[in-house]
Order: sequence, then structure tokens, then C-alpha cells
Amino acid sequence: MKESKTLSAAVVIIGDEILSGRTQDANIKWIAEKLGAKGIALIEIRVVPDTAEKIIRAVNELRGEVDYLFTTGGIGPTHDDITAESVARAFGVGLEQSAEALTILQGHYGDESALNEARLKMTMIPRGAALIPNPVSGAPGFVIGNVHVMAGVPGIMRGMLDSVLPGLRGGAVVYSNTVTCHLAESAVAAELSALQEKFPQVSIGSYPRFKPGDMALSLVLRSTEKDLLKQATRELVEIVKRMEGKTPEAAGDEI
Amino acid sequence: MKESKTLSAAVVIIGDEILSGRTQDANIKWIAEKLGAKGIALIEIRVVPDTAEKIIRAVNELRGEVDYLFTTGGIGPTHDDITAESVARAFGVGLEQSAEALTILQGHYGDESALNEARLKMTMIPRGAALIPNPVSGAPGFVIGNVHVMAGVPGIMRGMLDSVLPGLRGGAVVYSNTVTCHLAESAVAAELSALQEKFPQVSIGSYPRFKPGDMALSLVLRSTEKDLLKQATRELVEIVKRMEGKTPEAAGDEI
Repeated sequence: MKESKTLSAAVVIIGDEILSGRTQDANIKWIAEKLGAKGIALIEIRVVPDTAEKIIRAVNELRGEVDYLFTTGGIGPTHDDITAESVARAFGVGLEQSAEALTILQGHYGDESALNEARLKMTMIPRGAALIPNPVSGAPGFVIGNVHVMAGVPGIMRGMLDSVLPGLRGGAVVYSNTVTCHLAESAVAAELSALQEKFPQVSIGSYPRFKPGDMALSLVLRSTEKDLLKQATRELVEIVKRMEGKTPEAAGDEI
Repeated sequence: MKESKTLSAAVVIIGDEILSGRTQDANIKWIAEKLGAKGIALIEIRVVPDTAEKIIRAVNELRGEVDYLFTTGGIGPTHDDITAESVARAFGVGLEQSAEALTILQGHYGDESALNEARLKMTMIPRGAALIPNPVSGAPGFVIGNVHVMAGVPGIMRGMLDSVLPGLRGGAVVYSNTVTCHLAESAVAAELSALQEKFPQVSIGSYPRFKPGDMALSLVLRSTEKDLLKQATRELVEIVKRMEGKTPEAAGDEI
């Protein structure tokens, strides 16, 4: 059965290291693609500092606006890991020790005596939350309401997302085609605008590249409706062909 | 004269292409580093879709909270470029044709007859805004209040930021050192926490890497106070040396 509606998601990246410019984000594109393949569209991303008030505000503003909210970062054992505590406060619940998390960490670190205070901190999750397994380093993430709390380290985040995805409802997948040409944006703008009006269910975006030796214009068409996407893409190929004098490159899901 | 306070900034990235996962962000790290060098710290980033209501909300929520707000994306000639209109609405002013922008675009495209409707769209800026020159493709960005509206294409954004930076007030620069070791985060967590308490003016972050063949822990110290940063770094080096049995690698601004 085809889903009729694309679901929505947002991401809160808890990361002083992204805001300071120290670290290049390596999670947004990955999460966007994985969710997109399931028919869940990202509609907002926020990067906030490791500050409880900022985390709480972002979580509480966004969780009511989307089907699924994801957070990354701040679930480790050190003093700057304040995500569990902040999410608990966002939901107005306390933190409590998860017996399941304790068992997982005992298994990971070998025995109970290895569980120092820092490691025990990672067993404290908001009341009512369910765990998300961590395939790399033991300490689990968790889900509370529609909020999925994951690690920030890309390898761990990916494992957590993989374990969460099968349990999420899926929506209508957005398919995408790209027509690449060498026209100026302003030369094709009127035709694009008319095409957009003709196909309101296809979203048309225009992305120029200006790198020396790599000047090109990517025209991206996106829709949940394969037939409309195919038809709009064909019309765009004809427009560009007429203007540029040759058939442009077209690639994507539904050509 | 040393500035006593770090200034604050936020970025609103207007970009369906980032949210869909089509494009890897290439602007955040660049902007963070350039602003950081001037003593302006990024405190929030939002990625929003090409939707007027989302842009207006992000601009209006953030511009009152920071010294400088920057937007990227959506200032070209096509139908999906709605940033100027949205920012005008955020400020409650109209769009009007900028004579200066018209002159710039006439120069860029050769003569007035080349200015079709799409190109003329790029001369329309919010009333009261000042232009930001575009060193690559003609169409200018603009500044209104504390909001700096720039292109999303990295090469153009960088040129615009370079032309804006000299006019911004600078703040206290945050200096940063990194101590790299191979301890488990949970092994060093108690010592880090004590060090953080001893040096409240130094922010200490802990960032593990779990890639196979590249397991390491980066301990990042950040402060506007060079002496305190140096002293905290020395103490951290001693802590790690005692625990790991060898002197760790330390690098950064103030070693």
C-alpha cells in the first residue's frame, strides 16, 4: 500500500564542537538520506550548544511540530554530557537508573566493579524512556515520546539510527531527479517558474555552481508522485534542450 | 585594547537541499572559524526549508538573541529564492528596488537590456537595507538591522563574509588547546570534572573517536583567558601523563 503523506522530522545537534568550527558536521546528510528513504522528510535542523536551557527549548519547540525528533550528542560519561538530564527536564520527568542499561554496561565493561561513577551516569535515563542499543561503545541512547536521543560520534549515531528505523512508521517517499545544464539561472528562471506553477506537486529547486572550471546549474525536481515527477522532468529537459541547443544530462529516481 | 566579552552570532541556513540530504553543508565550519577569529561565537544554527513562514520565524526568534545574525541561501533569480521577501516581512518593511543593485547588475550583465524580470528580482531588497557586494555572480546580499543576508553557494558566501567582517565589532577571541590521548572517557571523567570546577573560565569538552584503527580521545580546552587556558592545559597534560604513563600530544593556540 502506498503511503499518502510524507512524515516529518527534525534534528537537534547538541554540539559545541560544531558551533566552534572545530568539527565538520558528518551527521546531517546521513540522517536526511536514511529518513528520506523511509518517507520521513527533515523540516528543520538546529545546532545548539552544550547548555541545558538551549537544549530544552529546542526539544520542546520542535517535538510538537514533527512526527519524529532526533537529537545527537552529549550522552557520554563526562561533565559536558548533559543531554539525558536536559531531555528529562524538557519532558518534566526525573532521571532514573535503567536496570537494562546497567546490564548492558556491565556486559560491556566486564564486571560490576568496573562501573565507576562516570559509567553509572550513562545508566541514568528519563523516566519512561526506552533504550536504543549502542553497537560500538556500550552506553545506550533512548526514546521518550517522539524524541530519539542518539550519540554524536558518527559511527555510533549510524548504528543507533539503524536500530531505530525499522520501528518508525514510514511515509510517502519523495523521489528526486536532477537536470544538469550550463544555462544562467536568470535565463531559465521564467520557464522554471511557469513549470512550477504547472506542477504544484513537484518541488523545483535551482542550484548553481560557480567553481572555476565547474560552472553548472543543477535543476532538482522532487515529488512523492512518480508520474508527475517523470512528466515535469521530461518537460524541463525539453525546455533546456530548446534553450541550450542540446539534450541536458538528467539523472535520478524516476527518469 | 583587549575586548572583554565574546560577541554572539547565529546562522539561518535556508536550504531544502541540505534538509533533503542532497548537499553536504560546506558553510557552517567556515563561518564559525571566521567569526571565531574575530571574537564572535556562534551560539545557534538553524537549517530551515525554502518556506517563508519558517524563514521569518527563525530570523525573528534569533535576531534579538545575538549580536549578529547571518542567513545563507535563497537570494538568486528563481522562484524558489524567497529570502529577500521573507526577511523584509520579518522586519515588517516592503521590498524596493535598489538603484545601487541595478547599477551593479547592469555592469555585471553588460547592459540594461539584459536585465530580464528574473535579474531585476535580484535588485529588490528590503527598505533600509545596505548591500553586501557579490564578488562572483553580481547579485548582492544585504544587511538590515543586525541581519546579514548572504548567498548559499560557498564561493559567493565566502566573498560576502570577507566583505562584511571588517565592519563588524570584534569581541574577546576564544583560544583553544587540544590534548589527545587514548584513555577511555569514563576513566578520565572524574578528573575532567574536577578540572572543570577548578577552571570555570575554561570550557572543557571531551570528544572520543571510535573509528577502527583510530581510537582516540580529544580533550578540548577553550577560553578567552590565555593564562588560564595555558594553566588548565598543563594540569590536564599532567593528569593524562599520570594515568596513561606517557606525555600526551597537546596542540593549539596557547601551549
